[in-house]
Order: sequence, then structure tokens, then C-alpha cells
Amino acid sequence: MSTAEETAGGEEPWAEVGPEAARRLLVAAVEAFAERGYHATTTRDIAGRAGMSPAALYIHYKTKEELLHRISRIGHEKALEILETAADGPGTPSERLAAAVRSFVRWHAGHHTTARVVQYELDALGAGHREGIVELRRRSDDAVRRIINDGVGTGEFDVPYVPGTALAVLSLCIDVARWFNVEGRSTPDEVGAFYADLVLRMVSARK
Amino acid sequence: MSTAEETAGGEEPWAEVGPEAARRLLVAAVEAFAERGYHATTTRDIAGRAGMSPAALYIHYKTKEELLHRISRIGHEKALEILETAADGPGTPSERLAAAVRSFVRWHAGHHTTARVVQYELDALGAGHREGIVELRRRSDDAVRRIINDGVGTGEFDVPYVPGTALAVLSLCIDVARWFNVEGRSTPDEVGAFYADLVLRMVSARK
Repeated sequence: MSTAEETAGGEEPWAEVGPEAARRLLVAAVEAFAERGYHATTTRDIAGRAGMSPAALYIHYKTKEELLHRISRIGHEKALEILETAADGPGTPSERLAAAVRSFVRWHAGHHTTARVVQYELDALGAGHREGIVELRRRSDDAVRRIINDGVGTGEFDVPYVPGTALAVLSLCIDVARWFNVEGRSTPDEVGAFYADLVLRMVSARK
Repeated sequence: MSTAEETAGGEEPWAEVGPEAARRLLVAAVEAFAERGYHATTTRDIAGRAGMSPAALYIHYKTKEELLHRISRIGHEKALEILETAADGPGTPSERLAAAVRSFVRWHAGHHTTARVVQYELDALGAGHREGIVELRRRSDDAVRRIINDGVGTGEFDVPYVPGTALAVLSLCIDVARWFNVEGRSTPDEVGAFYADLVLRMVSARK
């Protein structure tokens, strides 16, 4: 994860990880996986990037897959927290949907390197770990469906198929991590605001 | 690329590649890159998957990067062809935008393995090759902007910012390759039709 990414994103997603050496190794793993892919990265590469020995890495993580799982879990928990905060927060369905999109996009733009690893390396997780991650994804999906269903219920939204619309909304936001460029024209906040408007159009929100 | 992928997508994207051995190597490279990532794949892996020797591979491709470039070029040319056909075709802007989204989504769902390699391994292209690919992407972007601008011109669409909207439309369609599952509920055609409707909402198309 580059300094540019941290600056753009605001908060530091690994702040909760301790001790400091474990945190440094996680940041190094994100960088290495993003640059070369999970399978081309060795624990030796990761330890080297963190300025540590392979033996020091094994104190904190038994396997490379454990590092990926830790990254994936933190990323997915953050995504779920963002979406549930908006889904269960105050405001009309339009306001809650706009809030969800704004903060979900902001996270994917600000932490695009982490988000890419989280999204593109799912197949590399072990079966046991994957199950827990799939459950977090199901709950994220659910949070968005809940907001859209509320809007359909109040007559504020007009949507032909709620599950497909929820999937498309999440997909649009997640793909920001693929194309977002810190040197580009727009800030994470600007993309978030623009996308909130696009998504309200997708659900034909009553103005 | 799995058989399932070929079936779902209809046409075979490598039909134009010859001779047969060169085509087989390309299909093997797509599979290997998708499974393990570009950097973790060797030319020996690719030759092995194609049932050939490394020496036989070098008759057709001098480097692994040449294989990736060939895949990327074919994928990007196909995308451009789909979008320009719709942009320059007959019909109202709404009809042309819907046609573009339908066929672009169909391609990304039907050829999701290829599309993932094409989209996620751009950084692995050599600088010279990347330049040509960036130009193809610029023209694809242009085709979508052209349709949206036409709709704004006729008053059929209401869009606050055309370049951002064109980017979001392409992004929504491209991300289908990430989540599409051949064992899922929807066919590529169904996703294409559903997405065409979503995108017409995004541009507030007059009904």
C-alpha cells in the first residue's frame, strides 16, 4: 500500500493490527500481492519488504495464506461496517443509499490497492477461510438489499429486480478500485458523490 | 478458458489465431494466467498445459509477455468492435446505448476468464505494448461517450457529466467478468438485458 493510497483514503485500515511487526508484515503483503499476485509472492519476499527475516514472519503468521486471510477479513469487515452503518442509519431510503455508495466508493478509491487484493485473490483462500469471507459478503449484499427494499416499500424507488440491482450497485462501487488513479482528475470524495447520484438514478429514486 | 466459458460466450475469441498450435498455446496461457496470475506462470507451464514442449512454444511466441500482449490485444480489439458497432449503428441513442451494453456485458459474462486476464494484468505489459492497448481503451471510451453525447444532444438523455458517466457504464459492464458465475442464476443474455435497462436509468433516458 503506497503512501499515496493512505493519504487518499484518510484512515489507516491496519491501525487495529498489532503488534507493530505484524502490522508492517500485513502492509508489505498487500503491496507484494498487488504487484506480483498472491501465487508469485513468497513469505521471504514479504519479510524482505518489511525489513524482517522469514523466521520473524513466522512468529506472526504461520503461512502466506494466513496473511491473505487476515487482509481479506479486515477488508471485508470494513466493507460490511460501511454498508450496515448506512443501511441501519437514519434518513430516507434515498439518503441511506446515497450514504452507502458515497462511503463504499470512498473506501475503494482510497484503498484501491488493498481492495484489489481483497477482490481478486478470493480463490487463493483455503476452503475454511473462504467460507467465513463468503458469509461477510452475503451480509454486505443483504445490507444493500435492505435499503433498496425499504425504498421499494415506501414507493420511493422503482426497481424491477432487487437482488440484481443490489449486485449491480456493489459491483459498480467495487470496480472503482480497478480504475481509480490517485493521479487522476477526481478525488475519492468526488467519485463517491458522483456515484451516489448515478445509483439513485439506477433505482429511479423519486426526487 | 474453460469449456463452460466457451459455451456461455457463444463465439470462440481465438478463432482468428493460427496456426492451431499458436491458438492452443494462447488458450493455455489464458487458463494459466487466470488461475495463478501472470507472474507465477512460466512459459514451461503454458507449454505443458498445451501438451507441447517449451521449444515448440518459442516457435510461436518469443516471450511470456508476447503471449499476454496477444491475449490483451485480441480482447481489447473485440471490446472496441462491440462498442463501435453499437455507437455507429442505426437507432436512437437509447437503442444504441442499450445495444452496446447488451453485447459488451454478454462478452464479459461469456468470456469472463479471458476478460479478467485482459483487465487485471495490464501492468504486466511492456511499455511499448501498453501504449497500443491504452489507445484501444481510449477509443472504446470514446465510442460510449459518442452515444451519450448524441443522447444529450437530442435531449433524450439527461447527464451531468458525460466522461464520468461513460467511465461508469464501462466499469459496470467490465466488472461482470469478476462476479459472473456460469453456475449462477442468470445467463449472459439475461444479465445483458438487465444491465441495458440499468444504464438507460443512469442516463435518465426519456421513455
